Amino acid sequence: MTTMQAAVLRGIQQLAIEERPVPEPAPGEVLVRITAVGVCGSDVHYYQHGRIGDFVVEQPMVLGHESGGVIVGVGAGVDASRVGQRVSVEPGVPDLTCAECLAGRYNLCPDMRFFATPPYDGSLAEFVTVHAAFAHPVPDTISDDAAALLEPLSVGVWANRKGQVSAGSRVLITGAGPIGLVATQCARAFGATEIVVADLNPHRLKLAADLGATATVNVGDTSLRDAGFEPTVLLECSGHPGATGDGIRTLARAGRAVLVGMGDDGLPLPLTHIQSREIEITGTFRYANTWPTAIALAASGRVDVDALVTGHFALADSEAALLAAERDPLAVKSVINPQR
Amino acid sequence: MTTMQAAVLRGIQQLAIEERPVPEPAPGEVLVRITAVGVCGSDVHYYQHGRIGDFVVEQPMVLGHESGGVIVGVGAGVDASRVGQRVSVEPGVPDLTCAECLAGRYNLCPDMRFFATPPYDGSLAEFVTVHAAFAHPVPDTISDDAAALLEPLSVGVWANRKGQVSAGSRVLITGAGPIGLVATQCARAFGATEIVVADLNPHRLKLAADLGATATVNVGDTSLRDAGFEPTVLLECSGHPGATGDGIRTLARAGRAVLVGMGDDGLPLPLTHIQSREIEITGTFRYANTWPTAIALAASGRVDVDALVTGHFALADSEAALLAAERDPLAVKSVINPQR
Amino acid sequence: MTTMQAAVLRGIQQLAIEERPVPEPAPGEVLVRITAVGVCGSDVHYYQHGRIGDFVVEQPMVLGHESGGVIVGVGAGVDASRVGQRVSVEPGVPDLTCAECLAGRYNLCPDMRFFATPPYDGSLAEFVTVHAAFAHPVPDTISDDAAALLEPLSVGVWANRKGQVSAGSRVLITGAGPIGLVATQCARAFGATEIVVADLNPHRLKLAADLGATATVNVGDTSLRDAGFEPTVLLECSGHPGATGDGIRTLARAGRAVLVGMGDDGLPLPLTHIQSREIEITGTFRYANTWPTAIALAASGRVDVDALVTGHFALADSEAALLAAERDPLAVKSVINPQR
Amino acid sequence: MTTMQAAVLRGIQQLAIEERPVPEPAPGEVLVRITAVGVCGSDVHYYQHGRIGDFVVEQPMVLGHESGGVIVGVGAGVDASRVGQRVSVEPGVPDLTCAECLAGRYNLCPDMRFFATPPYDGSLAEFVTVHAAFAHPVPDTISDDAAALLEPLSVGVWANRKGQVSAGSRVLITGAGPIGLVATQCARAFGATEIVVADLNPHRLKLAADLGATATVNVGDTSLRDAGFEPTVLLECSGHPGATGDGIRTLARAGRAVLVGMGDDGLPLPLTHIQSREIEITGTFRYANTWPTAIALAASGRVDVDALVTGHFALADSEAALLAAERDPLAVKSVINPQR
Repeated sequence: MTTMQAAVLRGIQQLAIEERPVPEPAPGEVLVRITAVGVCGSDVHYYQHGRIGDFVVEQPMVLGHESGGVIVGVGAGVDASRVGQRVSVEPGVPDLTCAECLAGRYNLCPDMRFFATPPYDGSLAEFVTVHAAFAHPVPDTISDDAAALLEPLSVGVWANRKGQVSAGSRVLITGAGPIGLVATQCARAFGATEIVVADLNPHRLKLAADLGATATVNVGDTSLRDAGFEPTVLLECSGHPGATGDGIRTLARAGRAVLVGMGDDGLPLPLTHIQSREIEITGTFRYANTWPTAIALAASGRVDVDALVTGHFALADSEAALLAAERDPLAVKSVINPQR
Repeated sequence: MTTMQAAVLRGIQQLAIEERPVPEPAPGEVLVRITAVGVCGSDVHYYQHGRIGDFVVEQPMVLGHESGGVIVGVGAGVDASRVGQRVSVEPGVPDLTCAECLAGRYNLCPDMRFFATPPYDGSLAEFVTVHAAFAHPVPDTISDDAAALLEPLSVGVWANRKGQVSAGSRVLITGAGPIGLVATQCARAFGATEIVVADLNPHRLKLAADLGATATVNVGDTSLRDAGFEPTVLLECSGHPGATGDGIRTLARAGRAVLVGMGDDGLPLPLTHIQSREIEITGTFRYANTWPTAIALAASGRVDVDALVTGHFALADSEAALLAAERDPLAVKSVINPQR
Repeated sequence: MTTMQAAVLRGIQQLAIEERPVPEPAPGEVLVRITAVGVCGSDVHYYQHGRIGDFVVEQPMVLGHESGGVIVGVGAGVDASRVGQRVSVEPGVPDLTCAECLAGRYNLCPDMRFFATPPYDGSLAEFVTVHAAFAHPVPDTISDDAAALLEPLSVGVWANRKGQVSAGSRVLITGAGPIGLVATQCARAFGATEIVVADLNPHRLKLAADLGATATVNVGDTSLRDAGFEPTVLLECSGHPGATGDGIRTLARAGRAVLVGMGDDGLPLPLTHIQSREIEITGTFRYANTWPTAIALAASGRVDVDALVTGHFALADSEAALLAAERDPLAVKSVINPQR
Repeated sequence: MTTMQAAVLRGIQQLAIEERPVPEPAPGEVLVRITAVGVCGSDVHYYQHGRIGDFVVEQPMVLGHESGGVIVGVGAGVDASRVGQRVSVEPGVPDLTCAECLAGRYNLCPDMRFFATPPYDGSLAEFVTVHAAFAHPVPDTISDDAAALLEPLSVGVWANRKGQVSAGSRVLITGAGPIGLVATQCARAFGATEIVVADLNPHRLKLAADLGATATVNVGDTSLRDAGFEPTVLLECSGHPGATGDGIRTLARAGRAVLVGMGDDGLPLPLTHIQSREIEITGTFRYANTWPTAIALAASGRVDVDALVTGHFALADSEAALLAAERDPLAVKSVINPQR
């Protein structure tokens, strides 16, 4: 087979399934036959707006960066016995040698090449090539879908790691979208004993409760301040400026706020609370060194990312997959299976 | 009631139930009616040998330091509404003002007063007084026995905290006595996904597996080195010099070894492994700031300390409780209920 | 001697020197004859406005909280041999037993009693009593003035500790008031090799350069963004919202911003920079466990707080001392010597 | 020029100056004309014994790994403008993609290629090639010799970083060889205010005092225990088992012991002290991410590695350089300048 199908964003709301050559693995790379691709909010955002902040889609670009599959070929220098290995694909490959990479913060590498972030193509295709070290083998206890969803799970792992969530932590999670929900599962896996999830969508709050939240707050009815919860950690997963400020104001002394959701500059900060309680606030940008943890959590059953999947789609139906979340309030995570 | 019964160590293997005055709470203290006291290896050691290292029992001393009960009186300056509160008693009260205390390491306070450590009496009695801040309220979901066993649970919390156990950690626990078993439960609660417990006693290894170990090693049959496990954290809970060295030799790069078990000076260190893998080794001495975490873990069901209890005794039968562990290989943790 | 003079704030811009009884040291306290009191911006603010945020002066209140002196009496339970000891007075005494205190974060104690913070009297008087553990002995290499100025030095120590300043750090300090200047000295002592100080006042920038800044930026001429400096740590000591945002925008990847200056709520945050570079921001509230470090730095000559003193005043001239900073652009730190 | 001179270890105490081809920089590498090479104890040990532990010299091997020079050529993919740059050569190049490398602990990479560690040739030659990211540009304020000596300086930086030395630390350094002496300088640069150096050699203790030690102990006269110093950090730089145990016994509560010196397995550990004071002990293996700090410290004058140099040698006199330390008790660090 020398050609394959790929889902290419050609312009705003213009997604085409194109025939493209199957890529050749360069030295140090592997070729992966993709079995599952999760749809991320960023894919939808590029589809709807053609850009995210400074990242503008100026050339046709293959979407997709949550992906898993099977190694079917290797480039020079890669152990050929890896062919046949089921893998989860970490979608960003850094330069490995800058100061950030050498310090273990490769997510901050200024020369990062990240799938489906202009100008780099993503993995919503039948095949993709990636650096061998970023194709992480997964055991059979992890499903094909789950292998793809280790990517959003990594975001949840990173949020909890940055939040220093540990046994006995009290965690507030604002936003019960896919990221808020993996953060919830991870908070439980990291040992949090109180996990409160806040959102407007009752279906998602119900799902949060099923996945480990010990309480939920519908912020349409109840303000966070009135919820009577004083968390030690805030994982802000909504991107709403109001949620960030309100969430920080609930934090206990020496509490930590982890900003996961994106938003606009000029976010107003409740400085008095931050000063008098010595709150720490940290930005997050993707993740680093999370796959081993994500694999261990999924393989041991501590988290269940399959539970997030609310729809399966063929590659030809990628556009429907992208639109699912806005069309259906019950939709959480769509998965595209390019081989089906 | 002005007198009470207390179990007093009067000499080696001489335990007497004595009539003593019910103590008066000093300013800042509470009076606790004790409902349960766990028997610790240190109680047994004082009973059998009259000393532990430099701590020598020179005067008759009440044994016991794992205890819970109900507040029945308060000293000056303590909120009287605390009467009736069910509490877990933290048995060591530091001076609160030395450099170690102010830095949050109150377990290292040189002026610590610790129950049943000469010359201070313990809590194996019908009543005891303690600093109000060290009588920790517990919810009804924590049983009387469990309130007492938050003390050994604290040792497990501290070991895991010192070991920086987190989601995805691989933990080796050497020694499956009561401390090894609470460390096992805590390792799971802290997010460890592989937990291997090593011991010689098959009954205890079985119990370890029931309480969260993902694998066990009977070191009578299999050496740690041959067990094929490369942990990121070692929690050494046996006090055997061989176990410490063998355990350290299995550690992964940048691994951490937490020494919980006591032992003699001159412990031989595998320096080459420690240097070439940059192993970190830490001593532990009791615990600090663990009760809030222990309460949260027990109340939320993440750990089950009641599962350790293999025998209940009346205060009059304290000597039998002390001897249970050596008489019965199936015994793990004896609990004395002074009110029964 | 049974009475003493004290500088009492009786209302806005109403400072009176009153005759008051010399206080008696309570159990656990010492009586200190005060030799030097530094004037802090908060003293000036209370004098000018009668309040700082939610702290309102409703009763006459003795000002002053930067103080040193000699122990001249002890309360019950305090070693009488301390009489004659030269000490630096740590002005906030926490309850020592709350969860924050036990965790080593006593600055966050909700029951803190802090000098010259309503309703507690300060130390701008001939004598003051304080908890024995908060009267820190100083060696003879530390002058009387310096003993008082260990308090603002502690703020500088805390800022650098929170900023994790270490060998090779690149530090930006916004604001060259007394706090910015001690932060500068401390940054050097903590090992920072590039220290850039920004302010509008050329005299203060000159002083910053004398005290360890490797470069200065007059933000009246040059914006921080154009200064071409990419710090790893920002110590924000000005309280100007613009400086905070501008300073954060210069931070290197994984940089840390320490907020020392106070300001209003609603501080706008440059979220994009914070997220894409994973900036950490931390509030600060006074300090904890800083005196041993401050004493070591001053005694060893690593910092020179005497160099900040631009005026000495008698107690009777306290009002002039309070007004010095606004009357004289060359004034940095006024010191009142109550015994002169 | 197509051939060069190199100092090759051909067997025990057999060092030959051989003619070898000038190496070609592979893709991603630079070619460095070497201007200075420091002689390390490991070079001497290979010369005298043909091995260090498990590392056995089985083929002729070029010695030397402390080196600086000038870039004179670049391999494919390297910016040609780097030709002419003065650089310090970091002598170990890891695989960059293993779990240790990605986590920022590249010194623990199992596939490390380290100069003059069998089977890899070192840099005691006129030219050497190295990965472009490991040839660190140095400013003109750093001499040629100092550029080479950033390597041992890195060991000192790493020891202090592992020891968490900060402002006000009290540091004990056992062993005043070149590593002990750079550790001393670094301790001062990291903010330690008391630095005690222990050794048997009075010349070296004198040098330690000149370089920042606040006190010295001649352990031939005075035992560490009698020296009356209670450090917060021990930097063990002697490799003597006795020094390690004695040093640990002096540590303050919560103190840290950093093992830098190498030694045999079976090092006896003072367990009681470690447990009752919660001492942390860490192994060290080379260093990671130290060059930026080392460059900043040397360029800013905070450390002075030139002060360690006690002899300069031509490449032809390499054997004399290797023997200097044992022949001359005043010798500290020999530097070979291959271009002279």
